Amino acid sequence: MGESKKQVGVLGLGRMGTALAGALLGAGHDVSVWNRSPLKAGPLLDRGARLAATPAEVGSVDVVLSCLSTYDIQQPVLEAAAPKVLVNLTSGTPEQARGVAKWAASEGIDYVDGVIMAVPQGIGTPAAQVLYSGSETVFAAQRDVLEVLGAPVFLGEDAGLAALYDLALLGMMWSTMAGYLHALALVGTEGVTPAQFAPMASAWQSAVGGFLPGIGEQVASGNYETDVSALDINAAGLALLVETSRAQGISPAVPAALQELFDRTVAAGHGSHAIASVIEEIR
Amino acid sequence: MGESKKQVGVLGLGRMGTALAGALLGAGHDVSVWNRSPLKAGPLLDRGARLAATPAEVGSVDVVLSCLSTYDIQQPVLEAAAPKVLVNLTSGTPEQARGVAKWAASEGIDYVDGVIMAVPQGIGTPAAQVLYSGSETVFAAQRDVLEVLGAPVFLGEDAGLAALYDLALLGMMWSTMAGYLHALALVGTEGVTPAQFAPMASAWQSAVGGFLPGIGEQVASGNYETDVSALDINAAGLALLVETSRAQGISPAVPAALQELFDRTVAAGHGSHAIASVIEEIR
Ligand SMILES: NC(=O)c1ccc[n+]([C@@H]2O[C@H](COP(=O)([O-])OP(=O)(O)OC[C@H]3O[C@@H](n4cnc5c(N)ncnc54)[C@H](OP(=O)(O)O)[C@@H]3O)[C@@H](O)[C@H]2O)c1
Ligand SMILES: NC(=O)c1ccc[n+]([C@@H]2O[C@H](COP(=O)([O-])OP(=O)(O)OC[C@H]3O[C@@H](n4cnc5c(N)ncnc54)[C@H](OP(=O)(O)O)[C@@H]3O)[C@@H](O)[C@H]2O)c1
Repeated sequence: MGESKKQVGVLGLGRMGTALAGALLGAGHDVSVWNRSPLKAGPLLDRGARLAATPAEVGSVDVVLSCLSTYDIQQPVLEAAAPKVLVNLTSGTPEQARGVAKWAASEGIDYVDGVIMAVPQGIGTPAAQVLYSGSETVFAAQRDVLEVLGAPVFLGEDAGLAALYDLALLGMMWSTMAGYLHALALVGTEGVTPAQFAPMASAWQSAVGGFLPGIGEQVASGNYETDVSALDINAAGLALLVETSRAQGISPAVPAALQELFDRTVAAGHGSHAIASVIEEIR
Repeated sequence: MGESKKQVGVLGLGRMGTALAGALLGAGHDVSVWNRSPLKAGPLLDRGARLAATPAEVGSVDVVLSCLSTYDIQQPVLEAAAPKVLVNLTSGTPEQARGVAKWAASEGIDYVDGVIMAVPQGIGTPAAQVLYSGSETVFAAQRDVLEVLGAPVFLGEDAGLAALYDLALLGMMWSTMAGYLHALALVGTEGVTPAQFAPMASAWQSAVGGFLPGIGEQVASGNYETDVSALDINAAGLALLVETSRAQGISPAVPAALQELFDRTVAAGHGSHAIASVIEEIR
């Protein structure tokens, strides 16, 4: 850390790869970049990055970060780059991450898998969590570089663990966003604008965030007793939301799927239990 | 306000009605309560509440708050109570709220509809938003009582508006909770406990909360250009989440419904747009 700057390669200059390379340049590292469409490198070259014409030209640096659309697209690029040390920041499944770990081991490449829980604009801020799994030795050796991207968290030696967390956390995001879009569509049917709805929605969303730790505790203990709100009254509410969505002329797709799940959980005998008991039907 | 205390009636002593009556007692109001199961009133009577044997015995106070499971259960109770002033805090649809408003008007009852965006434990704190619609005159006249319950917000003269907001906001909660339960189930398949997952999930959930205002702006403008994250890459991620959920042996119900919705939006030509464009398929 401190003064010693590294030679870092970045494979992929999409929205995220560009942000990663930018943060590394900002921290004073010596950055080489490769992208299928080299024109995207322009602003980074202006800031001192070196453009590699092929992935192989990047590979000989201290550490290579890869961030491409998918694992299928990434694999030939990694094989061409043949890095010494690889931090894989492309999103995929645990199985895909374990596959790259296996390939890296067979090639003698030091490997750690990472997932970025942030948007490109958040890279380089402490609010950006980046979760890693795989070789803890590699993680520790590259920590100086990884700290530039966001707050690094090491999850464990199973290379698939970071991808598992990633999908779980992204699923939370997609659910939350879909719920918000459904809400905007619903109030929109009566002419309520997003600007009018936003203050109440933001206050409520942070209240809901405060319910999550309690849900976690109930799941951990398997004790679903509640003095807050019972599942049956929430299932009834979901039915009203589906009905009202239809009556207002919008798609009930988002709540309808949840209604089905909540109803199944009530039918399984959890009506007087907490909403957390829905996990029994997901498992 | 200030010194002048009112006679307040509460119909329904479930989890929420009990919290409402407790807060009103705490603020020094003269509280009469009625519940189908009168035994639940015990702790409130100890704190000075008066028990009414029938809804009619409650009705003659300054203002009556009703909080029962459903509108169907509530209507005969309201008819028996025949209050002068009614604040309806039972959850339902906009149509149901408008129905009670119409009935109240025909009976000469001053009426405002309210929805409580809080759990019973939050009642009486400023974090508890309570949203009202219907007669603004009644709202203003009862503001001293309503402020005891939480932060009151008046939405408009349409009595159905509060119920519409309620369902929209509850839909956000159910989506967020279902997303979290799915996440817990998924990481649980690899032995990760809720306690291990919670810190990352909470940090991420508040980051996601920060994305909502931007989504609202995109919906308002109809401009779905993005330099953050495109829908197609998120739709691909959803497919991986569904696939991984199945591979890990849990139900893909929560993400599968979203995948279908995201895929439809991509098919409609929004692949390179922001996730906010999904609202086009909900509308
Ligand atoms: N954006 C976010 O908010 C975010 C957050 C966390 C994680 N991620 C993950 O980061 C990764 C990249 O996301 P992004 O948002 O940067 O995506 P993006 O803006 O769409 O960029 C995609 C990248 O993949 C390259 N690529 C696509 N097809 C290719 C092909 N056939 N051959 C070679 N290169 C190809 C693109 O090269 P060209 O420039 O030549 O098209 C570009 O470098 C994904 O796995 C994503 O899930 C993104
Ligand atoms: N709990 C929350 O977090 C929350 C938050 C916001 C809004 N709300 C809304 O507040 C309302 C009450 O919720 P809650 O959580 O208090 O529900 P709850 O604990 O289940 O209480 C239900 C109430 O309805 C009464 N009731 C049920 N069936 C009845 C019948 N056939 N005849 C007469 N009374 C009957 C119950 O009387 P008994 O005691 O005799 O059964 C009890 O007073 C609902 O509309 C709910 O959506 C609740």
